[in-house]
Amino acid sequence: MKNRCCALDMSDKASFLNRVQDIHRIGSIQGHLGWDQETLMPEKGAKSRGEIMAWLAALAHEKVTDSEMGELLGRLEERDDLDESEQANVREFRKRYDKATKLSAEFVSEFAQARSEALVGWQKARKDADFSAFLPHLQTLVDLTRRKIDAYGYEKTPYDALLDEYESGMTVDDYDPLFEGLRNRLVPLLKRILEAKESNPDPTLPEGLTFPVEKQEAFCTKVSERMGFDFAAGRMDASTHPFSAGIWPGDTRFTTRYDELDPFSCLYAVMHETGHALYEQGLDENHRFTPRGDAVSLGVHESQSRLWENQIGRTPEFWNVVMDEFQESFPDAPSWDSSTLNRIANAVEPGFIRVEADEVTYNLHVMLRYEIEKKIFNENYPLEQLPELWNTMISDWFGLTVPSDDLGCLQDIHWSMAAFGYFPTYTLGNLYAAQLLEAMSDDLGSIQDSIASGDWSPMLSWLRERVHKRGSALLPADLIEEATGSPPSSEPFLRYVEEKYGAIYSL
Amino acid sequence: MKNRCCALDMSDKASFLNRVQDIHRIGSIQGHLGWDQETLMPEKGAKSRGEIMAWLAALAHEKVTDSEMGELLGRLEERDDLDESEQANVREFRKRYDKATKLSAEFVSEFAQARSEALVGWQKARKDADFSAFLPHLQTLVDLTRRKIDAYGYEKTPYDALLDEYESGMTVDDYDPLFEGLRNRLVPLLKRILEAKESNPDPTLPEGLTFPVEKQEAFCTKVSERMGFDFAAGRMDASTHPFSAGIWPGDTRFTTRYDELDPFSCLYAVMHETGHALYEQGLDENHRFTPRGDAVSLGVHESQSRLWENQIGRTPEFWNVVMDEFQESFPDAPSWDSSTLNRIANAVEPGFIRVEADEVTYNLHVMLRYEIEKKIFNENYPLEQLPELWNTMISDWFGLTVPSDDLGCLQDIHWSMAAFGYFPTYTLGNLYAAQLLEAMSDDLGSIQDSIASGDWSPMLSWLRERVHKRGSALLPADLIEEATGSPPSSEPFLRYVEEKYGAIYSL
Repeated sequence: MKNRCCALDMSDKASFLNRVQDIHRIGSIQGHLGWDQETLMPEKGAKSRGEIMAWLAALAHEKVTDSEMGELLGRLEERDDLDESEQANVREFRKRYDKATKLSAEFVSEFAQARSEALVGWQKARKDADFSAFLPHLQTLVDLTRRKIDAYGYEKTPYDALLDEYESGMTVDDYDPLFEGLRNRLVPLLKRILEAKESNPDPTLPEGLTFPVEKQEAFCTKVSERMGFDFAAGRMDASTHPFSAGIWPGDTRFTTRYDELDPFSCLYAVMHETGHALYEQGLDENHRFTPRGDAVSLGVHESQSRLWENQIGRTPEFWNVVMDEFQESFPDAPSWDSSTLNRIANAVEPGFIRVEADEVTYNLHVMLRYEIEKKIFNENYPLEQLPELWNTMISDWFGLTVPSDDLGCLQDIHWSMAAFGYFPTYTLGNLYAAQLLEAMSDDLGSIQDSIASGDWSPMLSWLRERVHKRGSALLPADLIEEATGSPPSSEPFLRYVEEKYGAIYSL
Repeated sequence: MKNRCCALDMSDKASFLNRVQDIHRIGSIQGHLGWDQETLMPEKGAKSRGEIMAWLAALAHEKVTDSEMGELLGRLEERDDLDESEQANVREFRKRYDKATKLSAEFVSEFAQARSEALVGWQKARKDADFSAFLPHLQTLVDLTRRKIDAYGYEKTPYDALLDEYESGMTVDDYDPLFEGLRNRLVPLLKRILEAKESNPDPTLPEGLTFPVEKQEAFCTKVSERMGFDFAAGRMDASTHPFSAGIWPGDTRFTTRYDELDPFSCLYAVMHETGHALYEQGLDENHRFTPRGDAVSLGVHESQSRLWENQIGRTPEFWNVVMDEFQESFPDAPSWDSSTLNRIANAVEPGFIRVEADEVTYNLHVMLRYEIEKKIFNENYPLEQLPELWNTMISDWFGLTVPSDDLGCLQDIHWSMAAFGYFPTYTLGNLYAAQLLEAMSDDLGSIQDSIASGDWSPMLSWLRERVHKRGSALLPADLIEEATGSPPSSEPFLRYVEEKYGAIYSL
C-alpha cells in the first residue's frame, strides 16, 4: 500500500509541475513575440500578430482553468510534504487559478473589448487634452473593475483587491503608513531644494551639441557590461519605449531609445533596463518555467532597476569610474567634472509629468495617483471631478498650476488599460532599492567605495544571492525582510534622498 | 432531420478547420522562433530555445495524431460537397496524419537522436575530410530511413516514398525522363562553353576592391523593392546562410550575407530570397493557417527564387535597369557595361561545390545526388563505396578529379539530416521557373522587354495569379500544368540555357 500511495503522491506533484511548466512556456512565447512586436515587427504584421497573441492567451486560459488543475491544487494544498519551492508554486498558481475561474468568459471578453476601446479613446482625448471625451470610457472601466473586485472578494477595502494584483500581499493598511511617512518628509525636502536652487541653479547641456547614436550605443553597452549584463545571454535593441523582457533562461533582452541631444536619456534608460535584465539573468534556472523561478513582483523588479539607475548610476563615484569612456565617446562635450555630471543627472525640478520626474518628486507623483485611486474605489469618488482633484493636489504638493489635462490626469496610459493599483509598485521599488542598498553596505562596506572601485561584481553577487535566485519563493514583503532583516520601510529611502540631495544642493 | 444533418456536417468541417488552424499556428510560431534563432538569438539562449522548440513539436504532434482528427478526416473524405480548398486541406492533412501516425513515438525519438548525432559527426568528418568517420552515422540514417519507407509504403520503388515527402506526387518515373533529357543536352553544352572560354576568358572582379556593407545593403534593398517586396509587411536581415521565412500574413522575413569583396554574392542571395519571400507575401490570406494557404512545394518555391535570381537578375536587361544605382553605390568599381556585368554574373565554371555552381552545371550536381540516392534505396548500393561512385561521376560529367571528400560526397548537410529525396526539388525549381517564364511571355510579350522596362509589376502580378494565390489548391505538377498549359518538362529550361549561354559565349 505504501508504495502505491507514494506513486500516487508523486504523480500529483509531477502532473502539477508539468501543467504549470506548459502554461509558463506559453507565457514565455508570448513574451518573445511581444518583444519582437515592439522592436522588429513590420507594421502590416500587426493583424496576424494580434490573432496569434489572442490564440496563445486562449490556450493558456484553457490550461489554467482546466478542472483537473483545480483538483490538483486542492489535493496539493492539503499535503504537508511540499518543500519551499513547491509551496511557492502552489500558492502562486492558486491565485492565478482563482482569478481565472472567478471571472466568466463573457466578462473577460467584455472587459477586453472595453479596454481596447478605452485605449483608443484615451489616445485621442490626451491628444485633444479633453477629459470629457475619456470620461465615459473611464466610467465603464471603473464599473467593470468594481465587478471584478466583487468577483475576487477582499478583506478590508475594495482597493485592496486591486493592489494585490500587482504586488502580492500588499493592502491599503500596508501602503498608507509607508506613503504618509514618505510624503511628510519629501514635501519639505523639495521646498528646501527649490530655495537652494534660486541662488545656485543647475548646470545644463549646451544647446546644439549632439551625441552621435552609435557612440551612445557603444558607451552604454560598456556600462551595461560593467554592471554585469551577459551579452552572450541577451541583447540590447532600440524601441520607442525602453523595456526589458526575460524571455527564458539564456535569453534576456532589453531596449533603449536614443536622443542625439541628450546622452543621459539613453544612459539611464540602459542602466534602468539592465537592472531589470540582471534580475532576469539571475533567476534560478533550476526553477525555469514555474512561478518559483519567476521574478516575484513589480515592486521588487523596480527595486532592481532603480537601484542601478539611481543609487549607483546617479552618483559622483559612478561618473569618476566611467569618465574616461564618456570623454572618449563624446570628445566635443565640455570637460565636465564628475560633480557637474552628477548634478546634471540629478537636477530636481517639479514638473507635470511623472515619467520625467527626478528622485525627489517622482514618488509624490505616484502617491497622488494612489490617493486618487483609493478615493475612486473605496469612496466612490465621482469621476467627473477627477481633473479638479488632480490639479488641486499638484498645486498643494508641487506649487504648480496644471494648464491642461494632457499634462494632468490624462498623461498616463495605465487607467486606459484599467491597471488600477499598479502605480504604487513604482514607489515600492524605490523604497526596496534603498533598503537593499543599506543592507548591502552592512555586508560589503561603504557603497560609495564599492561603486568607486569600478568592480561592481560584489554588489551584483549580493543581489543575486539575496534577491534574484530566490525568485518567488516568498511573498515580496517577506523576501525584502529576509534579504534586509527588516520589513519594508520608507526610512532607508528618506535617509538616502535627504543625504544625497543635502550634499548636491548644500542644504 | 435535414437541418440536424446539415448542422452535423457543418460541425465536422468547422471542427476540422479549427484543428488544422491550431496546428498551423504552432508551425508559424516555430517558424518565427526559427527565424530569430538564425538571426538574433544570443548564444546561451540555445538550450532553452531547443527545449521550447521540442515542446512545440510535441504539442503539434499531439494535435496532429489526435484520434478525433483521424475520424474527422475519414468522414470528410467520404463527402462529395467539399470545395477545392476543403479538398486540398483534407488531402494535405491526410498525408501529414498518416505519416505522423505510421511512425511510433519511439521510432521518431530514435531517428531524431540519430540525426542529431549524425549532424555533429558530419561536421567533424567534413572538417577532417574523413568519410570513414561519417560512414557509421550514414549507415544508421539509411537503415532508419528504410524502416520509415516500410512504414509509409510505396507503389513502385522505395525511393518514391522519399521523393514524395519533398515534392508531393513525384516519383522516379516522373524524375527519370525529365533528368535524362536534361543531362543529355547539358553535358555537351558545358563542353562547348568550356572550349569557347579557352579563347575568350571570363572577366573577373579586380583584386582588393571593396564594396562597403552598408552600400550593398542599400543597393540590394532597392532591388528587392523593385521586385515588389513589401517592406511594410516584412524585413531583410543578415545571417550566416541566407534564408526566407513566411511567418504569417503581413510578416515575411528573409536574410542575406555580406562579402565586402564580392557584391554579387549579396545581390543574388537577395534576389533569390526575395523570390521566395514574394511567393509567401502573395499567398491568399483568406486561407491563412491552413495547408491550402501554404506554398505548395519545395520545387515550386525554388522556381520563384530561381526565376527572379537567374532568369530576371542575371540578364543584360537587368543590369541596364539597375546600372545607375550600382554605379552610385560603388563609385570605385570599374565602369563595367551591362554586358560585362552580365558575363561576370553568369560565368560558367565546373567546380566541386554545388552551392557555388552556375546555371549550367548546377543541375548536374543535383542529378548526381539523385542517381546516388536512387542506387542507395532502390539498389542497396554499399555505402562504403559512395566516395568512389561520387568521384567517378564528377570525373565523367565535369572532367574534374575530386581531391578530398570534403569537396565531394561530404559537402552537403542534407544526408546528415537524413533528408534523402530533397535534392531533386532544386532542379525541379529550375525547370518550373523556365516553364513559367515561357508561359508568362505568351501573355505579357518578350520577357527581355518586360525586364528592360524597369516596371516588373506585370511579371509579379502574373506569378501572383498563376502561382502564389493558388497556394496548395492543387498538387505541384498539376499547378504547373494549370499555370503553363503543359505538364512539367525540361524543354523550356534547355531552350533557355542554350539560348542564354549561346549568346554569352558566342557558341
